[in-house]
Amino acid sequence: MSRATRVTFYFDPISPYAWLAGLQIGRLDEAGLDVDFRPVLFAGLLAKHGNLGPAEIPAKRRYIFRDVMREAAALGARMTGPPAHPFNPLRALRMCIAVDDAPARRRFGLALMDGAWGRGRDLTVMEELVHIADESGLDGAALAPRADEAAIKERLTVQTATAAADGIFGVPTFVFAGEMFWGADRIAALLRKAAGTSIGEGELAAILARPAAATRKV
Amino acid sequence: MSRATRVTFYFDPISPYAWLAGLQIGRLDEAGLDVDFRPVLFAGLLAKHGNLGPAEIPAKRRYIFRDVMREAAALGARMTGPPAHPFNPLRALRMCIAVDDAPARRRFGLALMDGAWGRGRDLTVMEELVHIADESGLDGAALAPRADEAAIKERLTVQTATAAADGIFGVPTFVFAGEMFWGADRIAALLRKAAGTSIGEGELAAILARPAAATRKV
Repeated sequence: MSRATRVTFYFDPISPYAWLAGLQIGRLDEAGLDVDFRPVLFAGLLAKHGNLGPAEIPAKRRYIFRDVMREAAALGARMTGPPAHPFNPLRALRMCIAVDDAPARRRFGLALMDGAWGRGRDLTVMEELVHIADESGLDGAALAPRADEAAIKERLTVQTATAAADGIFGVPTFVFAGEMFWGADRIAALLRKAAGTSIGEGELAAILARPAAATRKV
Repeated sequence: MSRATRVTFYFDPISPYAWLAGLQIGRLDEAGLDVDFRPVLFAGLLAKHGNLGPAEIPAKRRYIFRDVMREAAALGARMTGPPAHPFNPLRALRMCIAVDDAPARRRFGLALMDGAWGRGRDLTVMEELVHIADESGLDGAALAPRADEAAIKERLTVQTATAAADGIFGVPTFVFAGEMFWGADRIAALLRKAAGTSIGEGELAAILARPAAATRKV
């Protein structure tokens, strides 16, 4: 049986944790994994699952920026952050999803996250997106108008809905060998899985089948 | 100036991540830190911040149990999990908060979390709680009725409200030198801080003062 090597990386540049994951993507390369960058609209995942984003809870928003600044520093990076947050990532996501070539889409995806979080660029500004695409070795001027194509808009919508239907509720999320890994801090768990460690799926299913004994009114 | 060594550990045995943090508490001891175990009602923090718990989003609940099972295994532990979840942790929390002696409260807090998550005990059953208290070197039969005292109920309410007012929105949370660390996976960040690493507070404040450019209707 051949070993699985394909990893799908679900990201949205609105998430600083997606940036932190992107900064560590080389760890997956070193493990011989082939990472496919899949743009999804984080707000769409939240809406589908009835979830709230961290920036939507004021105390959590304050904490998250502190946490990202600390974690980035531990990775030798500096969080600059975008000029406004949350921001509308739709154009950036659509331009990225329009890139069919996987290595080019990866370069552009990483550059978008680094642009927003490492370099403080505004991903809602067309000229910035064109510039970042150019820097990624793409033809930014040719790529930009593709974000307005109905088929590209639809691609992002479908990809987000499919991810949500597959149980993906946040970004960054990695899927490897049918298993989900949520968060930049779960790359280690993904690498353990790739190295052959598995959990007892039957045991997990039995635990998940247990009842709830208390629920809150919300 | 003397180095800060005091860490406050906010926990609720309803959270499997609090258990994972408890399993690693020795790392804080080794760093010379003095950990004060502070029981809080997780549901109270959620209510105060208008947040949702992971078990309240079905896809997230499914993922969380998988994740905890994986992370526990990586720590050499086995997640058994309670017979029902979420469960009402109030009696367990009140018995724990009634213990004034800090080392005894810590032993009992760890035993409650290990009882629920490592050993599959039902923390809503009085006899189980008495037994766990006895195992922790406490007098379980004497401790149990204290959970019904108005002053103890009030202590938990106040401690939870104070934590929420301090910006604590989840468990486990560590507070060290005025800085918050949320999640079992942030013990490393806490240890870096204890070793002298700090972020630029002015820089963080400036980033937090930036505007939001997009909000969802929720």
